[in-house]
Amino acid sequence: MVDYRRYKKLFIPGPTEVRKEVLEEMGRPMIGHRSKELSALYGELVPKLQELLYTKNHVFLSTSSSTGFMEAAVRNCVKKKCLNLVCGAFSEKWHKITVANGKDAEAMEIEWGTGHRAGDIEEKLSTGEFDAITLVHNETSTGTMNKLQEISEVMKKFPDVMFLVDTVSSMAGVKIEVDKLGIDVCLAGVQKAFAVPPGLAVAAVSEKAIEKAKQVENRGYYFDFLTFLKYDGKKQTITTPAISQMYALNLQMDRVKEEGLENRFKRHKEMADYTRKWASENFGLFVEEGYRSDTVTAVANNKGINVAELNEKLGERKMMLSNGYGDLKEKTFRIGHMGDLTLDEMKELTDAIDEILGEGK
Amino acid sequence: MVDYRRYKKLFIPGPTEVRKEVLEEMGRPMIGHRSKELSALYGELVPKLQELLYTKNHVFLSTSSSTGFMEAAVRNCVKKKCLNLVCGAFSEKWHKITVANGKDAEAMEIEWGTGHRAGDIEEKLSTGEFDAITLVHNETSTGTMNKLQEISEVMKKFPDVMFLVDTVSSMAGVKIEVDKLGIDVCLAGVQKAFAVPPGLAVAAVSEKAIEKAKQVENRGYYFDFLTFLKYDGKKQTITTPAISQMYALNLQMDRVKEEGLENRFKRHKEMADYTRKWASENFGLFVEEGYRSDTVTAVANNKGINVAELNEKLGERKMMLSNGYGDLKEKTFRIGHMGDLTLDEMKELTDAIDEILGEGK
Repeated sequence: MVDYRRYKKLFIPGPTEVRKEVLEEMGRPMIGHRSKELSALYGELVPKLQELLYTKNHVFLSTSSSTGFMEAAVRNCVKKKCLNLVCGAFSEKWHKITVANGKDAEAMEIEWGTGHRAGDIEEKLSTGEFDAITLVHNETSTGTMNKLQEISEVMKKFPDVMFLVDTVSSMAGVKIEVDKLGIDVCLAGVQKAFAVPPGLAVAAVSEKAIEKAKQVENRGYYFDFLTFLKYDGKKQTITTPAISQMYALNLQMDRVKEEGLENRFKRHKEMADYTRKWASENFGLFVEEGYRSDTVTAVANNKGINVAELNEKLGERKMMLSNGYGDLKEKTFRIGHMGDLTLDEMKELTDAIDEILGEGK
Repeated sequence: MVDYRRYKKLFIPGPTEVRKEVLEEMGRPMIGHRSKELSALYGELVPKLQELLYTKNHVFLSTSSSTGFMEAAVRNCVKKKCLNLVCGAFSEKWHKITVANGKDAEAMEIEWGTGHRAGDIEEKLSTGEFDAITLVHNETSTGTMNKLQEISEVMKKFPDVMFLVDTVSSMAGVKIEVDKLGIDVCLAGVQKAFAVPPGLAVAAVSEKAIEKAKQVENRGYYFDFLTFLKYDGKKQTITTPAISQMYALNLQMDRVKEEGLENRFKRHKEMADYTRKWASENFGLFVEEGYRSDTVTAVANNKGINVAELNEKLGERKMMLSNGYGDLKEKTFRIGHMGDLTLDEMKELTDAIDEILGEGK
């Protein structure tokens, strides 16, 4: 029998390790969701998120995983046809979601482990077929980080095409200047680089996206941007929100500020550099150069080690990493270096792996 | 400036007061959502919920508020036309949600403060127009509790009509025998009579509802019952769930068992009887006899007291009740007597109200 109460430090690409003081905040007593207290909390939290994202756009909070906002983005912002950029499991899922919501959509898939080229996107959009694209900035399944800046330059040539970006595993770990990049919907969950327990999703939504939603029918209710907007005006959420996660996120944003945004991004970069160096010296890197994620590294298992077994042994040392995703299981394994983890903790992990694999020799 | 950290004991109809040991469980460290640990937690929790609901149906967990499952129910189970029974704000919202999802729907509205008559429903369904009805068992906005048993007898005459029931503020406080009643979707959130922090919703979904979903298009992804079913088979959730709420709910279900289901339902009945007696002696009752809720009482403010002011003064004593909902504001006020509250605590509240109103004389 597996005891779910057994503690392991998470080096997986989400949910990530949550610090004690943030976990404790989850235990704060409840408040009414239509109370002044809730509006006070909302009013503190949202501006902190806008600052993190360098945006004046609305920031909506959804009591759901990020997938909820992925559905919201296409349900609200696709009228004609959506171009889904696919380079891994989560971007593929976004295509599925688009189709499942009755939208006309085309997947432009590239080899997993490679990143999207701005030129290819430009060519595709030039056909005039599309009124929206979905891009997964940081493909958690492969460890690919797409070049947001380059793609954003292309997007500026197509102002009528909605720019929908999943930054699920990069937001709060990597600098994303939403307004400069012209992102219409920039979404994430709080259980990745935010280092908060899962159950709440965040999205910066542009005025353009709001205007678009007004022209789109069958937006449903729970993920309707216009309903979000209405309650945002009251500093409330559509329905009873995940209040505990709001508490934790509000505290965590103060901790992020205390660290300093630039310092936080730098720490992520340093952890990534270290992990990549270790991986390339001991195994290989799954992702092509220039597209390697600063929050998660997919290690190419070119030594053919048994990843599940390695993870069991790490478990005995109270640590956990991730096997490869789907078909990439055992062919790769993934190390998350995001949230509140430190370079020292990354070294602890790689030391432990070195030791375990050394024992096997 | 309102400080959201100021504690008040909640006598509102949700979120309800959460006991210290359940709150503390929210602070448990994270586990991977595709780990054996998560499946162990899921595997413990779901059977406990089936037992609570006297059902062999699937019990799905959604990281959303109950509104998410209200959307799911109509999005998955309405093909032809939905009859929305409306007797308050939340049943009215369910009609809105049905329409917002592009479904053909008709609202059968009765006067707020009264309950639905089985005969009227039978007459309506006899037209053969409908393939689903939505019923809010316990209208939180008005304190009306509909007669589930009587309505279920009618529903048995229409086996092709999906029986979709919102038990948001009654589940875990009132006995609901899902299988005997033949409910196809029985949904609730955990922040009401479960007395767990909000962010997770629960639904018992029948095989008939699953079969129906297979015939319905445009079910989306996040709330697609067939996707829920697929992951249920793996003892996992579709996306990263609200793990902290799962921890808390799992512990709380043990506490519920310790109390005993029948004892729990009896305690709710006693608190309701007490509150109604106090209300009718001091004010009046908004809901007609025979339809008064065992989890929330809407007090008719026939003395014309200033409810907002009363609540401010209760706040100074670290207690909170709810004003009337929407248009019923100041005309009624609502006292929640659900979850883990006790008869003694209800007396503390009514004593405090008596004192505050006495001072004003």
